[in-house]
Amino acid sequence: MDIKIIPGGVTAAPGFTAAGVHAGIKKSNKTKPDVAVIFSEVPAAVGGVFTQNSVKAAPVIYSQKVAFQGTAQALVVNSGNANACTGMEGEESARLMAYWTARGLGIDENRVMVSSTGVIGHQLPRDIVKTGIEKAVAGLSKEGGHDAAVAIMTTDLFSKEIAVQGMLGDTLITVGGMCKGSGMIHPNMATMLGFITTDAAIEADVLQNALKKSVDKSFNMVTIDGDTSTNDMALVLANGKAGNGKIIGSGSDLNQFQELLDFVCIELTKMLAKDGEGASKFLEVQVKNALTEKDARMAAKAVVSSSLVKSAFFGEDANWGRILCAVGYSGAQFEPEKVEIWLESAAGQEKVAELGTGLEFNEENAKKVLQEKEIKVIVDLHQGSAQATAWGCDLTYDYVKINADYRT
Amino acid sequence: MDIKIIPGGVTAAPGFTAAGVHAGIKKSNKTKPDVAVIFSEVPAAVGGVFTQNSVKAAPVIYSQKVAFQGTAQALVVNSGNANACTGMEGEESARLMAYWTARGLGIDENRVMVSSTGVIGHQLPRDIVKTGIEKAVAGLSKEGGHDAAVAIMTTDLFSKEIAVQGMLGDTLITVGGMCKGSGMIHPNMATMLGFITTDAAIEADVLQNALKKSVDKSFNMVTIDGDTSTNDMALVLANGKAGNGKIIGSGSDLNQFQELLDFVCIELTKMLAKDGEGASKFLEVQVKNALTEKDARMAAKAVVSSSLVKSAFFGEDANWGRILCAVGYSGAQFEPEKVEIWLESAAGQEKVAELGTGLEFNEENAKKVLQEKEIKVIVDLHQGSAQATAWGCDLTYDYVKINADYRT
Repeated sequence: MDIKIIPGGVTAAPGFTAAGVHAGIKKSNKTKPDVAVIFSEVPAAVGGVFTQNSVKAAPVIYSQKVAFQGTAQALVVNSGNANACTGMEGEESARLMAYWTARGLGIDENRVMVSSTGVIGHQLPRDIVKTGIEKAVAGLSKEGGHDAAVAIMTTDLFSKEIAVQGMLGDTLITVGGMCKGSGMIHPNMATMLGFITTDAAIEADVLQNALKKSVDKSFNMVTIDGDTSTNDMALVLANGKAGNGKIIGSGSDLNQFQELLDFVCIELTKMLAKDGEGASKFLEVQVKNALTEKDARMAAKAVVSSSLVKSAFFGEDANWGRILCAVGYSGAQFEPEKVEIWLESAAGQEKVAELGTGLEFNEENAKKVLQEKEIKVIVDLHQGSAQATAWGCDLTYDYVKINADYRT
Repeated sequence: MDIKIIPGGVTAAPGFTAAGVHAGIKKSNKTKPDVAVIFSEVPAAVGGVFTQNSVKAAPVIYSQKVAFQGTAQALVVNSGNANACTGMEGEESARLMAYWTARGLGIDENRVMVSSTGVIGHQLPRDIVKTGIEKAVAGLSKEGGHDAAVAIMTTDLFSKEIAVQGMLGDTLITVGGMCKGSGMIHPNMATMLGFITTDAAIEADVLQNALKKSVDKSFNMVTIDGDTSTNDMALVLANGKAGNGKIIGSGSDLNQFQELLDFVCIELTKMLAKDGEGASKFLEVQVKNALTEKDARMAAKAVVSSSLVKSAFFGEDANWGRILCAVGYSGAQFEPEKVEIWLESAAGQEKVAELGTGLEFNEENAKKVLQEKEIKVIVDLHQGSAQATAWGCDLTYDYVKINADYRT
């Protein structure tokens, strides 16, 4: 289908407004917006995917309950404090966030999803958050999408938004989204918050499945440092304002909606990888001709997660041995002696290994390829026909610096 | 039992000689020893544990065959080239290393174990290795243990050796060992080479089981950067010169031998962690009162492997939230609301979390604890009575630096 990128993010789809305001949750933050609210003028179907960590932050537990009911109308998010490992008091804080938002909007608190990101183990400053939420609700607008995207940032260097349009039969559908998360991103989602809105009309359980599929191809295929956070979630709200015939099961409408949702999730994922903490290079690892899709995913993720591979790319070193080694311990089924490896970028391509061993490749050309900011690694396993792509970044001095003194 | 630490390493036990010589396998290395040979004057029972990576270096494949036969008399090791991902030519090079060693010693090539470490994907310079082996065989001596320990180093900053003695009934037994490996160390052994010698008389299959048990408590509980190498192995040679009644199955003799072997493996493991690439701090993570030993191991390894935890210790930041978060995604069964966490060092102790949430702990005291070079993290799960310990180090700028330009 034709997918058209349009300006905007979570307010691109009709019927959605948003705001991002400064509350001052983190004492050191004097100006950055840190509370966001997204609102749908009518109740929307909801889908949600949540962290697999057994330590789940209070807002995750709250939002899971709302998502389970299948309908929501608003989302409130704060940065600067994760409200994780905060016990009963933290659970009450998450519920209060929903309550204050609901009261301002004149809706039920069970229709409000809650999300938090930031430092673990500190109680939320309730008064500050309450004031922030009231300000955000009062400021909701069609133009507020960007401020909302800024409000959810923590160590992110840039805000991450995208919106697209495509035709579902005769009906124009809009899907928009925003996300945050730079360190601690990993399969099963880490401190990744992704929020997507659409005007498509779709049954909640069909939407839930579609989101799960998109997340498996996108947010679950990015890794920055291998850690998985207590707070991750990806949510989608579908308010039906487009007026398409409601998608209630499989068929071409669902396929086309899935394409739009995949596109938005994958583009947001690439932005996450490009903004990996301390990253100087963006890595895309494509594993081709694996026996199964699961093998392809395991292999691609192992390569993009390897500290040794990541350090080598920081050093612009064509160390294909570390790539093959990572595939070796990934758990993927393959015969090492069949593997081919290419390095590719805007500067060209270089085949560095075949039949599982190194080639006498052109070091000068390889260096040129690796000097670029965006590098693609292609690993052909020659086992079958399945493939997968994973995204990540290099490991740099700055990663260590950022994470050595994040809490203080 | 009484375990006495004595000077020396692989030649501490009677009947073993060794040598470490400079061959010049890596062009940039003008003086460091890079070929080691260990020799037992009589055939010895052998045990071996090898990398789980599906990409196995040629010497691993060769040594697995020798170990499977249960008897060996010599070991040849080179650093500077891993002879991994080198195809048929590499397999022939590994066999030739055994052959040259065997010829010099007047034994069969099927009695020689082979091991390599260094860069992946380059063919071994055979002439240089051959000359080095001949020199090493000619130089074997009782005093050669230390040179052998130096010869197996790659990016290691110091050589790693230990020897102990203890009584098996009426018989004095000596166990000595050496190891190398600073980056790329992880559960399932990474570029970890560990070589142990003993004069105990023990059946090969009993020795194999004992080694496996020791490795699970030691080398498999250390992690530097999460990568698992193509070349890892831990070997033990037992030549029977002590004259004890041969250990052929369970009983107090085996238990006491196991204690000696555990001690040597754990001490070598701690040295590995202290010499983690770029490490500025040594971390010991003890998980107590887990439901099962497997849970305890998974939790301890997850904490010591977390890039976020490692970076926080580099920054001397008491970020207990990241510790609890790592336990959360470890796969271990536990209830977050029961967890207690302590930080401990020579400077004192500070309890930083209980009932799964943070305490208003003394930041000043915590800082003092974390300023030390050796830090212990104690995680009490309050689930059962199993426990495990894992070792590692912090993540520093220097780790990135070392690995950004290792190949060139």
